[in-house]
Amino acid sequence: MDVSPEVRVGELTEADLANGFLEALGSLSDVGLSAAEAADVFRERRKAGIHTFVARAPDGRVAGTATLLVEPKFIHRGGRAGHIEDVAVHQDFQKKGIGAALVRHATEEARRLGCYKVLLNCFDRFAPFYERVGYRRHDLGLRHDL
Amino acid sequence: MDVSPEVRVGELTEADLANGFLEALGSLSDVGLSAAEAADVFRERRKAGIHTFVARAPDGRVAGTATLLVEPKFIHRGGRAGHIEDVAVHQDFQKKGIGAALVRHATEEARRLGCYKVLLNCFDRFAPFYERVGYRRHDLGLRHDL
Repeated sequence: MDVSPEVRVGELTEADLANGFLEALGSLSDVGLSAAEAADVFRERRKAGIHTFVARAPDGRVAGTATLLVEPKFIHRGGRAGHIEDVAVHQDFQKKGIGAALVRHATEEARRLGCYKVLLNCFDRFAPFYERVGYRRHDLGLRHDL
Repeated sequence: MDVSPEVRVGELTEADLANGFLEALGSLSDVGLSAAEAADVFRERRKAGIHTFVARAPDGRVAGTATLLVEPKFIHRGGRAGHIEDVAVHQDFQKKGIGAALVRHATEEARRLGCYKVLLNCFDRFAPFYERVGYRRHDLGLRHDL
């Protein structure tokens, strides 16, 4: 489960959008965007302070991704909460520890950005994966489709 | 459980910060900010596109609050997810339906802002409250303290 040493995690760039990013994310859910449309979304996300991380293979192809939202709260003396979203690894790169590397990276970035906690949601079957990287079961996730 | 008709829900303003907002939020968790410090946090939140709603009593005092984060995603063709956070009602105003009014308002704002879903987390004992306003149990919430 160790990460292949040549896979590097960093912030998403526009060049990644046409180099495997959308395919990696597609392992999670339907994307349905061209690279140009994704660039518009990327700009909107950056404006909102959302961090998108990618793991890149040696040839530059995106193997996986994870997102971090940083929420400045009034509670906890104006503390910040991190929220990890949309962790996805392309099928060609699964079972190599890339998902864990992405979650660890996003968690460390949350710490660097001053967060006092990081939250994420997952289905029960994925909880052991997150528990191995330091998360604990905390509460329930509820959803309302609009 | 009906909302007292004279309680109105709207967006937080700076004037609310010294008029019961911090006390209402204090029913949820320790705040520990002066109104002036809270104004700095409020500006940081607005910059990140975070919506803070308040329910105001007829005299203008803040009775409760709820927060909505809007997350532009790459998945779902660049769809937006809403996240409801920090729902709190001041002890003097509890059991009057104000929490439900705040959650309904935040959910409707999410719809207006183009969200395809709204997510929130709570402890098991609060799930029936959210189920009554249209939410369903979906997944697990995990947490990592930093």
